[in-house]
Amino acid sequence: MTIENIKNAIRNIPDYPKKGIQFKDITTAIKQPETFKEIIDLFVKHYQGKQIDYVVGIESRGFIFASVLAYHLNCGFVPIRKSGKLPADVIAQEYQLEYGTDKIEIHTDALNKGDRVVIIDDLLATGGTTLAAAELVNKTGATISGFAFMIELKDINARKKLEKYAPVLSLIEY
Amino acid sequence: MTIENIKNAIRNIPDYPKKGIQFKDITTAIKQPETFKEIIDLFVKHYQGKQIDYVVGIESRGFIFASVLAYHLNCGFVPIRKSGKLPADVIAQEYQLEYGTDKIEIHTDALNKGDRVVIIDDLLATGGTTLAAAELVNKTGATISGFAFMIELKDINARKKLEKYAPVLSLIEY
Repeated sequence: MTIENIKNAIRNIPDYPKKGIQFKDITTAIKQPETFKEIIDLFVKHYQGKQIDYVVGIESRGFIFASVLAYHLNCGFVPIRKSGKLPADVIAQEYQLEYGTDKIEIHTDALNKGDRVVIIDDLLATGGTTLAAAELVNKTGATISGFAFMIELKDINARKKLEKYAPVLSLIEY
Repeated sequence: MTIENIKNAIRNIPDYPKKGIQFKDITTAIKQPETFKEIIDLFVKHYQGKQIDYVVGIESRGFIFASVLAYHLNCGFVPIRKSGKLPADVIAQEYQLEYGTDKIEIHTDALNKGDRVVIIDDLLATGGTTLAAAELVNKTGATISGFAFMIELKDINARKKLEKYAPVLSLIEY
C-alpha cells in the first residue's frame, strides 16, 4: 500500500458542492479495509512516542480519524462540535465562511493547561475551521502539538497559517 | 476496569436538551484513555470472528465508535449521514421525531448484496434513527449482522423493534 494507492481510492466529485469545485470523497477510501488501515497506521506512526495526551476531532469527519488515533496513542478523545451540540458548558469560536459565519464549540472542562493535543480533520482547505479549533484549544490552556489531515489542498496554502501554532501533517496532497 | 467504572465516567446532565430529560454525556468517558479503550475492546471482543465486512456509523457520535471497531475487525467504515452531507448518489430514509421528521442517507454504492454489517451508534433511546439506518442498509441489499450501542435506555424498549432485524449489543443500561 502506497500513498498513490490511497489517492486512487479517493473519489473525485466534479462540481460539488458547487460548480468548479472538485470534491474529494473519502468514503470510497475508508470503506476499503486495507486503505483505511494504512491511513490510520500512517497517522499513528507519525505521533507515536510524541507524548500526546488528547486527540481532538472536528465534527463530523474528523471524528472518524481522531477516535482511532486516540485509541492507538493511548490518548483521550475530545470532540469539537458544531454550535449547540455539546451538552455541558462550552467555549465557542466563530469563523468566516464564504458567505456569513459559523460557530464551533468545545466543552470548557474538556482540556486543561499543560495537556498536549493533536487536532485532526479529514481535509485542510481554507483552514477556517481548523484555525477556530486551534483558538478553542488555546483558550482551554492546552498546548497544540500538531495538526493532522488525510488530505491537504496545497494551492490554498492554509498550512502557513496553522504552522504558527504547530507542525502540520497531511498524508495526501492535491 | 468494569462496566461500573465506565458508567461512573458518564456525566449526567439534568434537564437537557429539555426539562425532565437526564442527558447522558459520553464525552467525559471517552476523554479518559483507559475508559475509551475498555469501551472499544468490549465491542471488538463481541464481534471478533463473526465475519463482519463493514461497520456502519451513524453521524456524528456513531462515527467515534464505528471507525475504531472497523479498524480492529479489519472491516471497511461506512457512514450514514444527515441529509445533504454525502456527495455522491444516495438512498434516503425519513424518520419521525417528536415534532416533525428528519432524514438520513447512505451512498447508493456504499454496500452490496451479501455484505455483512454492524450498525453502531452511541445511544439507543427511541430507536428512530437506528431503524431508519436499518432500512437504508436493507435497501442496499446488505445483511445486518448486529446493532451496537455504548448506552441503552431500557425503559423505552426500542431493542424489541431492532431485534426483528438482528441481535442488539449494548454495554451500559439505564
